[in-house]
Amino acid sequence: MANQKENVTPKGVLLVVSGPSGAGKGTICQMLRDRLPDLGYSISVTTRQPRNGEVDGVNYFFKTVPEVQDMIAKGELLEYAEVYGNYYGTPRKYVMDLLDKGQDVLLEIDIQGALQIKKRFPEGVFVFIVPPSLEELSARIYKRGTDSVDVIERRMASAAGELTYAAEYDYIIVNDIAEKAANKVLTIMEAERYRVARTYFIVDEICKGKA
Amino acid sequence: MANQKENVTPKGVLLVVSGPSGAGKGTICQMLRDRLPDLGYSISVTTRQPRNGEVDGVNYFFKTVPEVQDMIAKGELLEYAEVYGNYYGTPRKYVMDLLDKGQDVLLEIDIQGALQIKKRFPEGVFVFIVPPSLEELSARIYKRGTDSVDVIERRMASAAGELTYAAEYDYIIVNDIAEKAANKVLTIMEAERYRVARTYFIVDEICKGKA
Repeated sequence: MANQKENVTPKGVLLVVSGPSGAGKGTICQMLRDRLPDLGYSISVTTRQPRNGEVDGVNYFFKTVPEVQDMIAKGELLEYAEVYGNYYGTPRKYVMDLLDKGQDVLLEIDIQGALQIKKRFPEGVFVFIVPPSLEELSARIYKRGTDSVDVIERRMASAAGELTYAAEYDYIIVNDIAEKAANKVLTIMEAERYRVARTYFIVDEICKGKA
Repeated sequence: MANQKENVTPKGVLLVVSGPSGAGKGTICQMLRDRLPDLGYSISVTTRQPRNGEVDGVNYFFKTVPEVQDMIAKGELLEYAEVYGNYYGTPRKYVMDLLDKGQDVLLEIDIQGALQIKKRFPEGVFVFIVPPSLEELSARIYKRGTDSVDVIERRMASAAGELTYAAEYDYIIVNDIAEKAANKVLTIMEAERYRVARTYFIVDEICKGKA
C-alpha cells in the first residue's frame, strides 16, 4: 500500500491556483513566485506563431496543430484550451519531471483548466481563490478597466455560478488582502509536503536504517 | 453537494497526534497547547476511581462499567481502551460540540486509539510523528528511564512494525527537533482550516450577499 502511494504521488507538490476572474489569483501567484524563487512553473505548448524575441522551450513550446492534436490524443497534456483558433496546453511530462525531482510547481489557471488537470492528475493540490464579496469582485473588474461594460456585466452574471465550482477544489482561500491570502496559500503548500503520500518513503528509510 | 459536505465536517479541526512511543508526541502536543491557549481538548471518560482532588467533568467524566459499556454499544465513544481492568475513552459528543462551535481540538493518542477514531470520524486530521531514526528512538526511550530494559527491548522490536501504521494517517512529521516539528503540526492545522469541507459555507454566503 505504501509503495503504491509512493508511485502515484511524486514528492513535489503541484499547486493549482484557480478561481473566477477578478478574484485576484494573478496577484497572489506573483507574490508566491517572488517569495519562492525556486518554485517550478510550467512552459505551455501553443500552436500560435512565436512573437518577436520569444524562444521555443523558454516562453512556449511551439508546436503545429497536428502535433498538439496528437499530444491531446495521447493524453500528454494535463489541460488544454482553444483560444481564437490556437491551442494552448500544459505538457504533462514537463510538469511531472519537475515534481519527480521533488520540485514544487505552481500553475495559475482558469476554472475549466483546473478541472481538466484534476481529472488527469488528482494528486495535485487545488486551491480556489474567492473574492470577499460579489460587490468587491465587481469593483475589481471595473477598476481593472480592461473590459467593456458588456463584458463586465456578463462576468458578474456568471460569477456566482463560477463560485460554486469551489466544491471541486481541495481548499478555498478568501482574497481580502492579497498578502494575507498569499501567506495562506504558502501554508497549504508547506502542509501538503508532509502528506503521507509524499512522505511515506521516510518511514521506509527509517525502517531500513537509512535515515 | 456543498451542504452535504458542510453537514459532515464541522468547522473546527480535530487534530489527532499519534505515533510510536518515544517519537515525542507528548512534547510536541505540550508545545502546541502552550502556543494555542484556546486549543480545545477532550475530557476522557473512565471507570477508575477518582483520585484525591480529581473533579468529575474537569479531570475525567467518571462512569460505572455498565455506563461505559452502554456508551460503547451506542457508538458514543470515538475510541476506548481497557487498561488494568478500567475503561478509558473519548466521548464523541463532547468533542463534536467543540468542533461544531468552530473550536479546534487536539487529541494526543496512541496508534490503536487513533485508528479507532479514524474509523469513526475520518474527517479528523491524523498526524503521525516519527523519530528521525530507530537509533534515536532507542536513545530517547532509554533516556526517559521509566521503563525496564525488558520493556525497552520489546518496544524497540515493535517500533519498526508500528512505524508502518503511518500509511493510515494523513500526514507524517519527522521529530528531529521538537520545536520545528511542532511548527509543522501548526502549519498542518492552519492549512486544514481552509479545506473545502470546512470553508464552502463562505461561498454560500458570498453568493447570498451575506459576506
